[in-house]
Amino acid sequence: MSHQAYYHNRRVMITGGLGFIGSNLAHRLVELGADVLLVDSLIPDYGGNLYNITGIEHQVRVNVADVRQQSTINYLVRHVDVIFNLAGQVSHIDSMRDPYTDLEINCRSQLSILEACRRYNPTAKLVFAGTRQVYGRPDVLPVTEQHLVRPTDVNGINKAAGEYYHLVYNNVFGVRACSLRLTNVYGPRQLVKHNRQGFIGWFMRLAVEDQEIQVYGDGSQLRDFVYVDDAAEAFLMAGASDECNGEVFNVGGSQAISHRDLVGLLIDVAGTGRVRYVEWPPDKKAIDIGSFYADSSKFRARTGWQPRVGLREGIARTVAFYRAHLAHYLDTDAMEPPSR
Amino acid sequence: MSHQAYYHNRRVMITGGLGFIGSNLAHRLVELGADVLLVDSLIPDYGGNLYNITGIEHQVRVNVADVRQQSTINYLVRHVDVIFNLAGQVSHIDSMRDPYTDLEINCRSQLSILEACRRYNPTAKLVFAGTRQVYGRPDVLPVTEQHLVRPTDVNGINKAAGEYYHLVYNNVFGVRACSLRLTNVYGPRQLVKHNRQGFIGWFMRLAVEDQEIQVYGDGSQLRDFVYVDDAAEAFLMAGASDECNGEVFNVGGSQAISHRDLVGLLIDVAGTGRVRYVEWPPDKKAIDIGSFYADSSKFRARTGWQPRVGLREGIARTVAFYRAHLAHYLDTDAMEPPSR
Repeated sequence: MSHQAYYHNRRVMITGGLGFIGSNLAHRLVELGADVLLVDSLIPDYGGNLYNITGIEHQVRVNVADVRQQSTINYLVRHVDVIFNLAGQVSHIDSMRDPYTDLEINCRSQLSILEACRRYNPTAKLVFAGTRQVYGRPDVLPVTEQHLVRPTDVNGINKAAGEYYHLVYNNVFGVRACSLRLTNVYGPRQLVKHNRQGFIGWFMRLAVEDQEIQVYGDGSQLRDFVYVDDAAEAFLMAGASDECNGEVFNVGGSQAISHRDLVGLLIDVAGTGRVRYVEWPPDKKAIDIGSFYADSSKFRARTGWQPRVGLREGIARTVAFYRAHLAHYLDTDAMEPPSR
Repeated sequence: MSHQAYYHNRRVMITGGLGFIGSNLAHRLVELGADVLLVDSLIPDYGGNLYNITGIEHQVRVNVADVRQQSTINYLVRHVDVIFNLAGQVSHIDSMRDPYTDLEINCRSQLSILEACRRYNPTAKLVFAGTRQVYGRPDVLPVTEQHLVRPTDVNGINKAAGEYYHLVYNNVFGVRACSLRLTNVYGPRQLVKHNRQGFIGWFMRLAVEDQEIQVYGDGSQLRDFVYVDDAAEAFLMAGASDECNGEVFNVGGSQAISHRDLVGLLIDVAGTGRVRYVEWPPDKKAIDIGSFYADSSKFRARTGWQPRVGLREGIARTVAFYRAHLAHYLDTDAMEPPSR
């Protein structure tokens, strides 16, 4: 059975389901005929946004809940086959200001979900949204899964712990789970109302608004980028494959590009925006990881996945999306439910 | 200045200070003329035992407190120069039954201590008691610090997170910290009232009581053992050395020995006890790490540390200690304060 066919009538839960990657995954799952439950806390400042499910709002169920709440999660996991576990606090800088909230969401809530599965649905399959942040500042490039885990910030530490829990519950309690260590994912439906969740969405917004894009330092640091549809496909493949259980996989883009060249490409594609190079803010410099790009060959070999949307095409689609919908991503008014 | 001279009149706090390693460290610090504050929660079932400071009870201060309690820790860290951070939940099997308590003690409380230092005593130096458990089942032996962190149980995950916090606070906030990844530490003052905190103390008790010692499987798995005085010396050296800041170091024994040979040696030295080989209990087998021994050459090179007490001598001292004091380690009566 193809991994697409696998999801027909499959009962799927997505934590963080109103967020960036979660909602894009939901759109794809609806196309594939899955029975989709979206769980999201809709915490202001986080990525959840009801506008993200415009067009599929009648084909999914939404349950507003916080994954930290054990009894709620115990109930919700009972009748699903696959859980895409994407709920998280994703701001590195916030984690350094308030490490406890990051701990609660990225560590404790993962235990809540896994304990719920262990006790109430041990046959569920989980795919965890890991992050390249767990590697910290790389010793060698590209970074494989053999690289040491050595986070540079509290968020990276707590995400590492959340990931390790999944592997231990897989190995010890038989709750099937794996983790995808995502690099820089970008595309439609990403949070752009503030700049504390990574630079790529923020740069998209500034370009669309024809504003100045500030690049720290000389912009020579390298990154790889994954278009969100490719990331969603990676989740689908991992969720349908028991070959992935108990392991971690890098999921990155097919090319490395400097911040400088990325911004150049963005301005070129958008036809708007301009760049300025500025000094590193000390609080960001302290947790910067330098150049990073991932070797995703393990995941490609295991599943056949490969990124299909090139960077120019992905940027063009993203710019077009925000040109059409930016108002819904600018402030808390965007949190209002769409009409049903 | 020698590391011994460094501690003369030095203000030192030990979290978990009434526990096994903490109290042995306290005895040594009193000899060196340090001003010693012991912080311990005295949670029943954990390693804290007031009998452990018999003989130095008038030369140290004891503050009963839980390191999870932020305002208490904020106060206690203010007037110390060095913090030996040894408080922890150390039972692997308990962490699988109750992962939340392990999370609270091994993750959250570490943040509490580090946040307290960041805000109220940023010049303090911390030495964290890490564990070889973070490596999980080794790929190669002996295990260096370059081995992947890949814990097999919740305790190993949370101890890894607690350790990473120390490194991040060192690198980002300048709170000097390092971690010693201890292998199997043994010696006087170890908890022996139950068998959920590692086998070595439990085996000592059984030998002293002339009981049967159960070895799982064929007893071929290898371990290295560190006598507690050598472990205490490692903490003293790391605490006095800024060369160690921001790094992790294995602290293990000088030889690897199988469970089978260890128990043979123990029975030989004690002249009491006997061995029986039994099947692995499934819950313990599931989190077993197989053979493990550490390469401690990084720490030796950095500080000049080396283990000085051989296994036969260490076992002899430990057996003699429990022959004289076992009653104080058998039940909660041992929790009563010594007369002052």
